[in-house]
This record gives sequence, C-alpha cells and structure tokens, in this order.
Amino acid sequence: MSRQLKLGAFLMATGHHVAAWRHPDVPANAGLDFAHYKRLAQIAEAAKFDALFVADSVAAPTQNIASRMARSDHFEPLTLLSALSAVTEHIGLIATATTSYNEPYHVARKFASLDHLSGGRAGWNLVTSDNAAEALNFGRDEHIGHTERYSRAREFHQVVTGLWDSWEDDAFVRDKASGAYYDPAKLHVLDHVGEHFRVKGPLNVARSPQGQPVIVQAGSSELGRELAAQTAEVVFTAQTSLANAKAFYADLKGRLPKYGRSAESLKIMPGVFVVVGRTEAEAQEKCETFQQLVEPEVGVALLGRMLGNFDLSKYPLNGPLPQLPQTESGQQSRQKLLTELAGRENLSLAELGRKIAGGRGHYSLVGTPQQIADRLQEWFEQGAADGFNVLVPHLPGGLEDFANSVVPELQRRGLFRTEYEGRTLRQNLGLARPVNRFA
Amino acid sequence: MSRQLKLGAFLMATGHHVAAWRHPDVPANAGLDFAHYKRLAQIAEAAKFDALFVADSVAAPTQNIASRMARSDHFEPLTLLSALSAVTEHIGLIATATTSYNEPYHVARKFASLDHLSGGRAGWNLVTSDNAAEALNFGRDEHIGHTERYSRAREFHQVVTGLWDSWEDDAFVRDKASGAYYDPAKLHVLDHVGEHFRVKGPLNVARSPQGQPVIVQAGSSELGRELAAQTAEVVFTAQTSLANAKAFYADLKGRLPKYGRSAESLKIMPGVFVVVGRTEAEAQEKCETFQQLVEPEVGVALLGRMLGNFDLSKYPLNGPLPQLPQTESGQQSRQKLLTELAGRENLSLAELGRKIAGGRGHYSLVGTPQQIADRLQEWFEQGAADGFNVLVPHLPGGLEDFANSVVPELQRRGLFRTEYEGRTLRQNLGLARPVNRFA
Repeated sequence: MSRQLKLGAFLMATGHHVAAWRHPDVPANAGLDFAHYKRLAQIAEAAKFDALFVADSVAAPTQNIASRMARSDHFEPLTLLSALSAVTEHIGLIATATTSYNEPYHVARKFASLDHLSGGRAGWNLVTSDNAAEALNFGRDEHIGHTERYSRAREFHQVVTGLWDSWEDDAFVRDKASGAYYDPAKLHVLDHVGEHFRVKGPLNVARSPQGQPVIVQAGSSELGRELAAQTAEVVFTAQTSLANAKAFYADLKGRLPKYGRSAESLKIMPGVFVVVGRTEAEAQEKCETFQQLVEPEVGVALLGRMLGNFDLSKYPLNGPLPQLPQTESGQQSRQKLLTELAGRENLSLAELGRKIAGGRGHYSLVGTPQQIADRLQEWFEQGAADGFNVLVPHLPGGLEDFANSVVPELQRRGLFRTEYEGRTLRQNLGLARPVNRFA
Repeated sequence: MSRQLKLGAFLMATGHHVAAWRHPDVPANAGLDFAHYKRLAQIAEAAKFDALFVADSVAAPTQNIASRMARSDHFEPLTLLSALSAVTEHIGLIATATTSYNEPYHVARKFASLDHLSGGRAGWNLVTSDNAAEALNFGRDEHIGHTERYSRAREFHQVVTGLWDSWEDDAFVRDKASGAYYDPAKLHVLDHVGEHFRVKGPLNVARSPQGQPVIVQAGSSELGRELAAQTAEVVFTAQTSLANAKAFYADLKGRLPKYGRSAESLKIMPGVFVVVGRTEAEAQEKCETFQQLVEPEVGVALLGRMLGNFDLSKYPLNGPLPQLPQTESGQQSRQKLLTELAGRENLSLAELGRKIAGGRGHYSLVGTPQQIADRLQEWFEQGAADGFNVLVPHLPGGLEDFANSVVPELQRRGLFRTEYEGRTLRQNLGLARPVNRFA
C-alpha cells in the first residue's frame, strides 16, 4: 500500500469560526453538551479519522468582549476524552495539557489511565502555556518566560515518559497460585531529580497499551521545533502557504537525525480550515454566512488573543495592525505569521480580524470536495505534510460535510484509509511502540 | 415517604479483600479493565445505589511485599468516572482527589466538567493525603504535616467552591440574534489571595448542573471532623461498633449548628464490609475462602499501610502489635481504632493483619441478607448512619451478591428506594442545591 495521509479532527465546541455559535444550525451550548461531542466523535470515527484533537487553556478570558465569544465554557479535555473513550472504539483521543502549570506525576497518570481506558488510543498534546492569564490561576504574578517554559517542558517530558516506563510490559504476572502479583525486578523507580522537578515514582498505572501515549506538539518557534525534533511524534502547525509548509516540513524533519530519529517517527500535520460546498460558489456562500455574523470588535479581540493576549480595542478598527512588542506570553511564531499576512494584503485591523475569524491563521480551503482534495494531495505529495488537522467552521455540520464529501474523495484517490489498520492510535499513525528504557 | 438510607458502592478493582485477586472468580487485571468497571457501574445502578465511590492515592507502594498485593496498577479516578459517566444515567460518581498535592483550579475544573458530562452526578471526595510516599512524587522531601494539611484543605475547599460559583446559573444567555454569549454582570472573578493559594479565576466551565458537585469527606480526627462539619455534605467513616458509630454520628451532627447547618445537610455513611450468603454458614465459608488466600506477610503489610506507612516486617508475626509513634503521615483515627482492636481481642500481628484483610477495620457483616439488613436497619434507625458505603470482598461477585439479595431485602422493608428520586446525585441524596454566593 502506498503512503497515506493522516487526519485529525480538531474539535472546538461550536466550531472554529468565532461566530459559529450564532449560526442557526449550531447548538450554542455545544461546549458543555456531551451528546454533541459524542456525535462528533462518532462522525469522525465513521469517517476513519486518526484522532480527535482537543485544545486547552486553564483560564477563561474576562475582557468585556469575551462575553460575545463562545470561549468561556467548555469541558476539560481529559475528562471529555475519557468519556468519549467509552462510546468509541477506534479513533485516537488527543488531549492538550500544559507543562507550565501542571505536575508531571498527574499528567503521566491521567494519560496512562486514558490509554488503558481506550485500549491504546491516547495522545498527549504537550504544550507550554501561551496565555498569561493562566499564571494568575496558579499562584504566580506573571507568566513563566518563553525560555524557561521550554526548559520546563523538556524536563516535564522526561519525567512523564520516565514514569510511563515505571513498569515493564510484562511486569504484572498476577499469578493466583503463587501469590505473585508483579515481578519486582520489572519495577523501575524513576528517582528523577532535575532543575524543575523532583519525582520519585513509580507510576501507579501499569505500562499502557501503546507503551506510551503518543506525544503531540504544536510549537513552531526555534525552541519549539527543537523540542519537537527531540520528543514529538506528531506536530500540529499553522502554515499559510505550500512554500512555507514545505520549508517547515524540511526543517523539522532535518532536525531528527541528530536525535537518532527517522523521518517516519514524526508526523507533521498542518492545520487546515475547510469550508466545503457542492460548488465553489456554494462553499463561498457558506463561508460568507459565517463572516457576516462576526462583529468587527470580536474579530479584533480574537486577533489580539492570537497575537499574545494583546488588548487591541484601543486601536482604530480601520487603522493598520499596530507595532506590537514581542512578549513572553504570546505565540511568537503566530505573531510573525499574522504580521506578515497583514502587511502582504494591506489589511486594516478589522479586516485582519475578520480574515482570521474562521481559521485563525491556518491554511484555509473553501471549495468543492475535489478542489480541497487537490490541495491536500498537493501538500501531502510535495513534502509539506504527512496529514492534516482539520478545522471546520461549525459543528457538527462542518465535520459532517468533510466526512461525507472530502474523505470519500481522498479515499477514491487512495490517499486515505477505508478501514483502520490497527487497534491503537500508534498503529494507525504508523508510529513504532516505544521500547521501555529500563527493559 | 419515610426516611430511607443511602448506599454508596465503594469500588476497588478486584475487591476490598487484600487477597481477592487470587480468587478464581475474580479477574486479576480488574484494576485496568474498563469492561469490568462498566459492569460494576451497571450492577450498582440497576440496584439503585446512590453513587460509586473511588478512593485514590498518588503513589504506588514499592516495598517488596507490595509485589504480592493488587495495589499498584489501577485507573486514575477522574478519568475512570468520566468514562463511566458515558455508560450510566443515574448513579452518582464520587472521585477522590487530594488537596495536599493538587492545584485547586485543576480540581475545580475537572469536577465541574464531570458534573456537566454526567448531567449532575459528580461528587468530590476531598481528602488530605495520608501517604507520605505521595510527597516524593511532588518535589517534597517529606509529607506535609497534619495541621498544615488541614489548613491547606480548608483553603483549597474555599477556592474550589468559589471557582464553581464563577458564573451565575443563568450567566450564559447565548443569544444568537444580539451576539451576547454571556451576561458580564453574572461573571464573578474570585481573586482569591490566601495563605496557601492565589487564584484569580474565573473557571472556564459554566456553573454545573448541581450548582456544585457534592462534597464528600472521610476524615475522623478532630481537625477532620471540624472540616467536615464546616464543609462536607457526605461523610464516609470507619466505625467498628454501633456505640462508636452513634457517638461519631452525634458528635459530627452536633457540630453543624455552629456553621449554620441543618442535620440533613450532612449525610453520614459509615463503611460496611459485607459478605453475604444464603445461610450464615455459607457466608462464613465464603469469607474463609478469602482468608485462606492471605499470606501472613501480606496481611501485616496492609496493616502497616493502614497504621500510617509503617514497615512492620521486622516484627515477629506471632508477637503483639508494637508500640508505634504517632506520625504525621498516618491516619491518626485509624491507628487508634486498630490499636484498640488488637488490645481488646489480644491479637498477634499476623492475626490482626488477617482480621483487617477484608474490611480494613470497617464494620464487618457476614451473614444472610436478613441478618445484614437487620444490622444496617439498626444502625440507620438508632442514629448511627444515614446510609452506608458498601465494601465487598471481591468484584464483581460481591457486589452482585449485595445487589441481588441485600438490596431487595432493604427495599422490602421500605428502607431503600426502588426508583431514583431525582436526576442528580444531590437530588437522590436529598441535599439542597447550593445557592451561588455571588448571586
């Protein structure tokens, strides 16, 4: 079988379009409606998506404009994906958990537990917090700086994966006759002492079906890329053009050999915002329906959030994107991307806000299933992507559209599976099961 | 309808008997088998139990003897109960989470999320860690002392319940026409600054179906009782005799008025270890089957753990329980209870270990459904209990036995429901829905 692309379904309550919740087809309370998420999971699984992907932030926005966005009330990802594990069988379950404001023992344990609950379908989107508001919920006056965040993240990863190897795969013999529950020689106490953490171990969860849950990352800064090259197995990234995506792909894959890793051991999955219609005109019209629901102030607020928690409300809507300082809290790579976009297309603040209201700076495709499949195929075949993390404007409608039209087109072209290859997320992604470091 | 008793099903992997995993009817890998837990939940729900109760510890034992006990590999409770929420409809879901080694924002959020996922069935068993090994997994050399643990727990509770009130019940208007997603006047930023925590808030989860998940506690020390009187809605306790249970019940209920609380606002549910048979002889024989599977060293190790993480392996098995120091890590009230038991019955170390191998010092009932119902009725009617947290020796068998024989007997006597009264755990327990402090 020739190489096939991988697909993640990036779920976000009412959808990725900031005004989706106002659309008549969208349940406005989707963020806390389990039946809604269950339906999404089942649509994605029926379409053979590799995984569900759920982002996270451990803070709620409190500026006044936040009251006009559906961003303040949603399930916590690990509890949500645990619940979804009980009503799905094949699809991977990737939850985001920050290394900045968590303890590695808890994170290791919850993801190992999810991996057992789901029979080997857990993935951890390892992030450093990009949101200064989070610091204030965890006893700090200000956000941890960029460099320290990455140093902490690297050590956090070491501890978590070390804890996942606490037990060899066959440590638990559970021999009723002799009374031996586990083999003490196959228990490994981590005893980690580092710059940021001291964690003794062992984990109180057996090694999980995948050996270790899949490590996902989304950092695109220099530090982010280097951490990904060392530790990530899937990278989610925002790329606005084929050329940029190819450069990113080549750069990241090129960093793998120095860590003794093969190109296949890391899957690069750019985000792609997709609006699909039976005709191009229908797709454009669908897109416009959402765009007309965006209040300019809401678009600008979303923009400020994406640039690094800036309050842009004091700048004129019709003026240019102001010069903004590099901050420690922002997503540096996202800031660069959006500044370039505004300059290239000469967009006012309101126009830029409206532009990113759907895909938040991700590559956007609006068209027929064939047109969309053409672009995905192009990126896939030209070395820009191993797969895609799919963002749709509204849920569940946008996901149904993608599942019912784009997926069959990709399957017709032999680019996407018609049945799951394996039982675990790793097997479906084509990632090797990690060997226990202690075995 | 006359007052009825409440029932919790205290789930523990293979069962509460330390040797249960060796029994031929018990799946030895139950701790990480979701199908097993799903079955338990469905048995308990069919029997109209109020809630499932899952204990927790954030450490695994590493002494050599631990390799002969089924205590090292199990699901993390919040992920487990989230998954169970998707396959149950009525039963409450009470997970333990320690205040000693957690952050209140995470705890508030995960339980609020579980409450939404389950449609109002979440309970938080708020504990202070009783296990010094936990400290070592969270960057500390030694355990937090008893007094500080309780001071931290009290403030932790304040922060968590404050975060649960971040939003008024009707804060989220989600008005598609006007674009108002929430009413800013109904958002309340906690801004907590205390001795142990600084947490700004708000929570990024809407106020949950129960207003607040049910607060459960299990502390029996003076500080534990006082915290319970102030903050708990359900108290789980180990009591060995009717007289002791009545005294505890009277003491705890007697502390409520000073916090402006009614007797009904706190349900006291002693643990009861139950082995049921069609005849008393059959029940005794069943019990003996498990007792014969206990290695003396295993019983003594369990005892050491219960007394406060003491290594008792250096003391003679046939000698008396040695004098042990009061430690900061142990459960002080449990230590007192077991020391008295050993003295009263003049038990050797091995005998005491064997004695607690099933019910771990909880009130134990071995007999017919009628005999067991008689005792439960007596405790319930004589002011010793509002209900019981049921421990069975092995799972699923012991729970099936209880559900199929003791529950119907209690129902015949009008002591237990035949249908769930409400949709939420609070409604079934007869607990009021908390008013939002800010509303």
